[in-house]
Amino acid sequence: MSKRVFNFSPGPAVLPVKVLEEAQRAVLELPGVGMSILEISHRSKAFEAVMAESQSLLRELLGIPSNYKIIYLQGGSSLQFSMLAMNLLRGTGRTAEYVLTGTWGTKAFAEAKREGNAHAAWDGKSHNYSYLPDAAELKFAADAAYVHITSNETIQGVEFPAEPDTGSIPLVCDASSNFLSRPVDVSRYGLLYACAQKNAGISGVTAVIIRDDLLAKVPTGLPPMLDYRLQAENDSLYNTPPVFAIYVLLLILRWLKDDIGGLAKMAKLNVEKANLLYDVLDKHKDFYKGHARGDSRSQMNVTWRLPSEELETEFVKQAKARDLVDLKGHRSVGGIRASIYNAMPKEGVTALRDLMLEFQKQHAK
Amino acid sequence: MSKRVFNFSPGPAVLPVKVLEEAQRAVLELPGVGMSILEISHRSKAFEAVMAESQSLLRELLGIPSNYKIIYLQGGSSLQFSMLAMNLLRGTGRTAEYVLTGTWGTKAFAEAKREGNAHAAWDGKSHNYSYLPDAAELKFAADAAYVHITSNETIQGVEFPAEPDTGSIPLVCDASSNFLSRPVDVSRYGLLYACAQKNAGISGVTAVIIRDDLLAKVPTGLPPMLDYRLQAENDSLYNTPPVFAIYVLLLILRWLKDDIGGLAKMAKLNVEKANLLYDVLDKHKDFYKGHARGDSRSQMNVTWRLPSEELETEFVKQAKARDLVDLKGHRSVGGIRASIYNAMPKEGVTALRDLMLEFQKQHAK
Repeated sequence: MSKRVFNFSPGPAVLPVKVLEEAQRAVLELPGVGMSILEISHRSKAFEAVMAESQSLLRELLGIPSNYKIIYLQGGSSLQFSMLAMNLLRGTGRTAEYVLTGTWGTKAFAEAKREGNAHAAWDGKSHNYSYLPDAAELKFAADAAYVHITSNETIQGVEFPAEPDTGSIPLVCDASSNFLSRPVDVSRYGLLYACAQKNAGISGVTAVIIRDDLLAKVPTGLPPMLDYRLQAENDSLYNTPPVFAIYVLLLILRWLKDDIGGLAKMAKLNVEKANLLYDVLDKHKDFYKGHARGDSRSQMNVTWRLPSEELETEFVKQAKARDLVDLKGHRSVGGIRASIYNAMPKEGVTALRDLMLEFQKQHAK
Repeated sequence: MSKRVFNFSPGPAVLPVKVLEEAQRAVLELPGVGMSILEISHRSKAFEAVMAESQSLLRELLGIPSNYKIIYLQGGSSLQFSMLAMNLLRGTGRTAEYVLTGTWGTKAFAEAKREGNAHAAWDGKSHNYSYLPDAAELKFAADAAYVHITSNETIQGVEFPAEPDTGSIPLVCDASSNFLSRPVDVSRYGLLYACAQKNAGISGVTAVIIRDDLLAKVPTGLPPMLDYRLQAENDSLYNTPPVFAIYVLLLILRWLKDDIGGLAKMAKLNVEKANLLYDVLDKHKDFYKGHARGDSRSQMNVTWRLPSEELETEFVKQAKARDLVDLKGHRSVGGIRASIYNAMPKEGVTALRDLMLEFQKQHAK
């Protein structure tokens, strides 16, 4: 391999080198099968083993209770925005409560409104989603169909430190951008979903973890591909699943277990990495302006502004010269966004931290 | 690579070795980018180039007129069964005419009925879909929203030699299992769709080719991921597309153009391969019973029975011993199915033909 850059892209994102090497081997030939992972039938014993091991590892790493099903779907979180509302809200006559903490939660809310009565329980728009609600601010209709949160907002860089208490109302969570980055108490959720291309592999597969009692209430007559119950009954094999994307997810899960040592250790590493950057933001508040308030900071996407757009452009340019790439912030926040998912090595974050310190020295008045 | 088997699976299916080798290189590093194809952003210049080249090659190979858009979607043909009816039938008050020539067309029909008034214009169920309708048998409502056909039925092994004449009614075609296997006059279609895992790469991406006037009529208010117009307006980048599956499609298109020399040459090779098997069926009608009638035979999936189930089991076993794998027919037809898509080498088909001849000699009374 020629020189590898440090890829700070928000997703698709950096993957562990070990996973790339194993994926590469399987693309030429899956050991013992005489064909590539790209050629095997989704009904083959080889793929059955991939499905079984990936589900079993996911259960083990996240501690998923036995009354939850794991489903692998296509279409990304954007399709889940519609699908979850079709399955859990449509026709219920009840309200779905949405906690809007950033761009993705807002998109999920818009799709739910097509399917039924969705209500914004909290909306951080006025401060451009720079902090999360206090527990006391969250009031939900007692008979709500569900409460929807986005555990980490990729664009704004805000992350729930823990899930809010929704009592007996099912909690539905878009965990796309912090999935597998830390331990989660799955038993507190009704439904947890995440596209893979941040921490769990490549684009093309979305993991859905859903509690049995919610599956039982799915209305009849949905298109089969959009029906959680049918997909669960068919163990994600109603039609041909995205075989390779599921295989890469398996490689990631093996890496998390065998090389990292589980999600608690992963979380510790992630906090260490994020603190390298947040410490600079805290020390040089006169120069760097973090977007997220201290108590709402994401461990996955660190977002900040510089004193001017010219300096931001210059920062991105100097970063690129050091092989630190894809640091430009999303237009709705501006500035810099460093996505430092599980697979981002600490060396990459240290190199970025060093640049931040030098750049500040160079340009602060 | 260790010994490669001949993979007769109906899909996911055999891929050209050259494509596997190029995919393998890109999985470790996309040349000049410093990261893997699995890590690049869907908004990157590298991926923009993949999208542009794949669309341009697809246009060139199939001769797609400029008043058609190409969209890449997720969810396979099964999601298209619902999606096309949501986009082209729902709310029109018109009828959609379905020509049922096998299992997949029947599934498409069932999904259309959820969305509006769908009518079976012809149904081959009584003879287990062993032949296609005569042109004279096909009568359609003059103001039908569209006519739906399945150009090749993977399970039964029947294939339209050419598209039926639907006059001014838009022709909608599930081309999943013979896509890119022969030239097609795209101007005769309103909508042509195909999942990739037969002739066009790996599971996880579905190509949709749709005429502009149909796009213009898509109803408003559909979920964005299920809205052809929105997907076309966003050039398949409304959300993160299945980057790697699109990259493999590009490699296949390059192989078709540069190594094969286009679809006419591909079709000639496919006919040669299929004839190797059909010649045996024709010569030994007392032993092998082809499922498809002569005029309806598929060039992609060759299906036949043997005198007994015991002999069928023995045939599959002997084939496997010669590294000819995945030949067991679908339970709804039984017997043997040999899927001989574009990437199946002639040597594989010759080896299967040889086994058929030897097996007949050995077991015929």
